[in-house]
Amino acid sequence: MAMERAYLDYNASAPLAASARAAMLSALEVEGNPSSVHAEGRTARRIVEKARRQVAGLVNAGEEHVVFTSGATEAASMLLTPDWRMGRGPLRVSRLLVAASDHPCILGGGSFAPEDVTVLPVLGNGLLDLDALEAALAGHDRASGMAMVAIHVANNETGVIQPVAEIGRIAKAAGALTVFDAVQAAGRIRLDISEGWADFLILSSHKIGGPKGAGAIVAASGLLMPRPLVSGGGQEKGHRAGTENVAAIAGFGAAAMDAAENLSSMKEVGRRRDAIEAAVLENAPGATIFGKESPRLQNTVFFELPGMKAETAQIAFDLAGIALSAGSACSSGKVGPSHVLKAMGFGENAGALRVSIGISTTDREVEAFRQALAAIVARQSGASRAA
Amino acid sequence: MAMERAYLDYNASAPLAASARAAMLSALEVEGNPSSVHAEGRTARRIVEKARRQVAGLVNAGEEHVVFTSGATEAASMLLTPDWRMGRGPLRVSRLLVAASDHPCILGGGSFAPEDVTVLPVLGNGLLDLDALEAALAGHDRASGMAMVAIHVANNETGVIQPVAEIGRIAKAAGALTVFDAVQAAGRIRLDISEGWADFLILSSHKIGGPKGAGAIVAASGLLMPRPLVSGGGQEKGHRAGTENVAAIAGFGAAAMDAAENLSSMKEVGRRRDAIEAAVLENAPGATIFGKESPRLQNTVFFELPGMKAETAQIAFDLAGIALSAGSACSSGKVGPSHVLKAMGFGENAGALRVSIGISTTDREVEAFRQALAAIVARQSGASRAA
Repeated sequence: MAMERAYLDYNASAPLAASARAAMLSALEVEGNPSSVHAEGRTARRIVEKARRQVAGLVNAGEEHVVFTSGATEAASMLLTPDWRMGRGPLRVSRLLVAASDHPCILGGGSFAPEDVTVLPVLGNGLLDLDALEAALAGHDRASGMAMVAIHVANNETGVIQPVAEIGRIAKAAGALTVFDAVQAAGRIRLDISEGWADFLILSSHKIGGPKGAGAIVAASGLLMPRPLVSGGGQEKGHRAGTENVAAIAGFGAAAMDAAENLSSMKEVGRRRDAIEAAVLENAPGATIFGKESPRLQNTVFFELPGMKAETAQIAFDLAGIALSAGSACSSGKVGPSHVLKAMGFGENAGALRVSIGISTTDREVEAFRQALAAIVARQSGASRAA
Repeated sequence: MAMERAYLDYNASAPLAASARAAMLSALEVEGNPSSVHAEGRTARRIVEKARRQVAGLVNAGEEHVVFTSGATEAASMLLTPDWRMGRGPLRVSRLLVAASDHPCILGGGSFAPEDVTVLPVLGNGLLDLDALEAALAGHDRASGMAMVAIHVANNETGVIQPVAEIGRIAKAAGALTVFDAVQAAGRIRLDISEGWADFLILSSHKIGGPKGAGAIVAASGLLMPRPLVSGGGQEKGHRAGTENVAAIAGFGAAAMDAAENLSSMKEVGRRRDAIEAAVLENAPGATIFGKESPRLQNTVFFELPGMKAETAQIAFDLAGIALSAGSACSSGKVGPSHVLKAMGFGENAGALRVSIGISTTDREVEAFRQALAAIVARQSGASRAA
């Protein structure tokens, strides 16, 4: 009999929502290229534009300000460039400010030269050091070009939520552009681009129940846009060439609509997350839960079990039927210390386990996690005594 | 009663193959991120790697030389850059040679400065002017960097097949890199990268029966690679960051395997194409079929009806239930004269209709086309007489 598994790694990739699957199946039946003018092409076009409205709705944006990409990483690569346009004229961004706990696709700096990237520190609680942000912006020579602040709304490992309104206010006061990586925040907390703190949001389909392979840039206005990364066709109003991934975009749209509707149910997710956290503290009394004192996503627990390597524990959980992660899953096969924990001051070798859940997580899965954890801790404690 | 439609626009986007749909449905059930080490992640990884072998197989490449992208346009944007690496060292490409009849994603020159791009002429039969290629390569200053020749294997509008072995020989003799846009050729003619004429092939999933939203760069070796366009994660061996589009890649792989197997059935496609061509010449005696005297894909007819604007005829066909295109479908909403025909010397206002079919096209669809054409020509001739 196959063991029933509990998938608790939504921050790496969430299971496909039923609505997204249905939208994709329907879109896959459409032969047409959305750029074709015949009936089949127009049907494909309608699917893409419906999804655009749905994605815009998730963050209260104008649909005309959504540019679909192949994912959040492409969106970040597109936005993190010195080479911008204001209307038809060129505009230079000469400094990029990122946070030490950003996702690698932001922290890497895109196509900025390494010397033009400032990595801002975060505090022990995971929040951006706002004084450092202000100081860095004050030190920026605006004659050389604009500054851009790129930071996550919520951290993929800890779930810690940044003070985005405050970051936006500081950046705007200094005349800087703001790019917010909302990949983990979207569908988990309310996001409203019309509030003014973000010039751009980066969204990912597969973290909110859509398929892998779709993402978006959402702009607050159409005033400034980066030079296209993928060029050679007029799609996405010239901002992103290439035949649209109609099925994935359809799935992304459906998932975005669901996610917006499900925001009111996040309390349920939070209740299960609290049960997971209680299970950790109960079974492993010395466990650390990172970012616990900060505003956090209700779906994420990032914790360290005393005396156990994260990778070892991760494998033990996997064998026990529980999928969770040791750090993030952002780069192929790489397992190493968490740069997020390092940024929070937890030392070179800090490692931790991440449980991340969603609307479809069940109490039964939470209980399976509790039992697996109890068994792993007991075995570890037995092994310690025997040693 | 809904009218039965005939979809004859495979060069814009081919219908999804049954095998591709099945592979996608199965992949969509897998929650995991291919970069995750748990069982769900490893399952996703296996799906991607299976597809890599299948895509490699279509062009007889080593699977380790396939880099998945979001499509052919991204692949072109990635390859058409001055900024390359040989092993860990930088390598500069200082000149790009493209053909006047290339797809816009090649003709646009990627991230080369316009002054570093040479557009080579094609002859009246659609074939590249090889003397012009030789002369341009002879005039290239190799001290400034390498030259790169980027050209399509088969034209998306006319179906004309370029003399790739000869182009490769000339380019290699001059020490140039060769990039071949094999989007329309793949699955329609045999392609073997081990023959040595191509350093890189560009492939698209949705032209061969896979879904929209996947493509690949296939390299002949791992010696030279472009600077990553999408960066910020270790996926695709560092050549292309971002969570893999597992479902689309799975569908692409299945379609590639089918396409390789179906090559032997292309004669059937050719027979139907010939029937379409015969219908054109029979019903519109003065019609021109472009590129007819050149080696051509067996699935494409590009023709002009005397005295009828291509856009008008295209709409009439659409209303009659026939999906075909006026020119290509590469950029959103743009309808204009065909740059391919212009390159072949047919004047500023040349326009034509493209019928492009595939393995699943039926005799019934061919007959529906014939009837629609006859009715459209009869109406047009009545209107001419009345005028």
